Amino acid sequence: MANVLVFGHQNPDNDAIMSAVVLSQLLNQVEYAGNTYEACALGQLPAESAKLLADAGIAEPRVIESVEAGQLVVLTDHNESAQSVAGLKDATVFGVVDHHRIGDFETAGPLHYICLPWGSSCTIVTKLAGVLGVELSDVQAKLLLSAMMTDTLMLKSPTTTDVDRAVAAKLGEQVGVDPVKFGMEVFLTRPSGSFTAAEMVGNDIKMFEPAGKKLLIGQYETVDKSRALGMIDEIREAMRAYAAEKGADGIVLCITDIMEEGSQVLLEGETEAAQKGLGIADEHDGVWMPGVLSRKKQVAAPIMAAC
Amino acid sequence: MANVLVFGHQNPDNDAIMSAVVLSQLLNQVEYAGNTYEACALGQLPAESAKLLADAGIAEPRVIESVEAGQLVVLTDHNESAQSVAGLKDATVFGVVDHHRIGDFETAGPLHYICLPWGSSCTIVTKLAGVLGVELSDVQAKLLLSAMMTDTLMLKSPTTTDVDRAVAAKLGEQVGVDPVKFGMEVFLTRPSGSFTAAEMVGNDIKMFEPAGKKLLIGQYETVDKSRALGMIDEIREAMRAYAAEKGADGIVLCITDIMEEGSQVLLEGETEAAQKGLGIADEHDGVWMPGVLSRKKQVAAPIMAAC
Repeated sequence: MANVLVFGHQNPDNDAIMSAVVLSQLLNQVEYAGNTYEACALGQLPAESAKLLADAGIAEPRVIESVEAGQLVVLTDHNESAQSVAGLKDATVFGVVDHHRIGDFETAGPLHYICLPWGSSCTIVTKLAGVLGVELSDVQAKLLLSAMMTDTLMLKSPTTTDVDRAVAAKLGEQVGVDPVKFGMEVFLTRPSGSFTAAEMVGNDIKMFEPAGKKLLIGQYETVDKSRALGMIDEIREAMRAYAAEKGADGIVLCITDIMEEGSQVLLEGETEAAQKGLGIADEHDGVWMPGVLSRKKQVAAPIMAAC
Repeated sequence: MANVLVFGHQNPDNDAIMSAVVLSQLLNQVEYAGNTYEACALGQLPAESAKLLADAGIAEPRVIESVEAGQLVVLTDHNESAQSVAGLKDATVFGVVDHHRIGDFETAGPLHYICLPWGSSCTIVTKLAGVLGVELSDVQAKLLLSAMMTDTLMLKSPTTTDVDRAVAAKLGEQVGVDPVKFGMEVFLTRPSGSFTAAEMVGNDIKMFEPAGKKLLIGQYETVDKSRALGMIDEIREAMRAYAAEKGADGIVLCITDIMEEGSQVLLEGETEAAQKGLGIADEHDGVWMPGVLSRKKQVAAPIMAAC
């Protein structure tokens, strides 16, 4: 019997947190493989996750910065080492539950690897409850639904599939809420307008390596992009500082307006791959890309595919 | 709507065939993602698969040697390109259903990737039927159970998990057979004793790349190893010829005796990694490794881990 750490990516979003929290609960409920499972987080929780867990009386996942050699881990909502914990290469990956592209991932032996191209890792966790033969509690259903709604931008993102819509409807029924209305409530618990330029950049950002370059791709979601657009110079400075701190060659920031359904895309540093993949130039005020809501499907995938 | 080709590895065994046949049927039954799915095979069917399909009145999967650029594919029972179809790197992998280590696998976008460390790919296909909401027909249950039994050597291989045992019991109940007795019947439809040395080598063999070397690892399963042991020189010659034909640096052959529960392991060519990983020398008559029944878990994994 081993202790297995379960965690999502760096700069965790609500999907990274809730997938780790509920998946570890489910695995403990069925005593999967005789192990115990502990939810962790690779950074401070987003405001909505902290509030949802506090309301449910669930302790926040322990924040960890590294793992020891040989530690058993389950990765949720990511699989690439650049987005994961320090020390991962000497840890043992027991499992992965994810909905992203597969990075350069190689193992010596078989493991649990479940990737499905659905809108949220929590959609997969919901389905896994069925495979494990566990009935979700109302609290679990609520936490999972909250992450499905934030990750699919209230089911509006093009990453949303029929499976997500069906699962969200079922969870909404169990919890007794309309999924989209509930999602909007969750979204509005975020401290709107109080973000500094540095927070806009670092809030939700991931490292990619197109064509051997280190490229950061960040996303700041808002219901009103006008404030961000009034502070472009400050944001660009924060982008340069963040890229320098992380040793990245370039950085892309998508200021995503959920209401207007599109993103203002800013580039800094070496962003040839991004310019090619997105078909945009490096304009000072950024380029408005209507309909672009998904970093994964509409930003990262075309950049990686263009290499 | 696209046509998706579903196939297992080269030199297909019963698990590679049945996982492709039944998975494609299930995906067609639910019209998954609006596509059609066609089972294929990367080589001649093993005797037991041909008989089981003929008895069930199901056409044998079409044998293919390559795929065109952009072809949508689902890989079953493998994920490594060295074990797959020619042209794979320019195809689009729609999904993978597998129970092996993950090779150097990378994609531009998300896909369906389901790997579970269970004894047979058909155990996973059985569970997927539930996720897809399909009730297996008795014929499907029988085909899946046959592959579970051959791949786990009647549930005796150390790759066998509690999940396999539970799924086998359930399938056996549906079909009305004792899983192990049924598995032995399936095994005995193989043309025992009629294998040539070249067939023993090529019957079930996969390419690995430990430490940058091309290493073939083959397995010949028998209920009586004495005949094989009486033709060692001939088998060694066939191993050298097979390795030369495939451009491999080295080759490992496990002559696995199911009744005595162990393998006689023969090495040819550059096999430093294999010698280190298995802790054996290159003896002329091979080395008897008691309890070694699983190429994946007891042969390939320690060799890959030793690099």
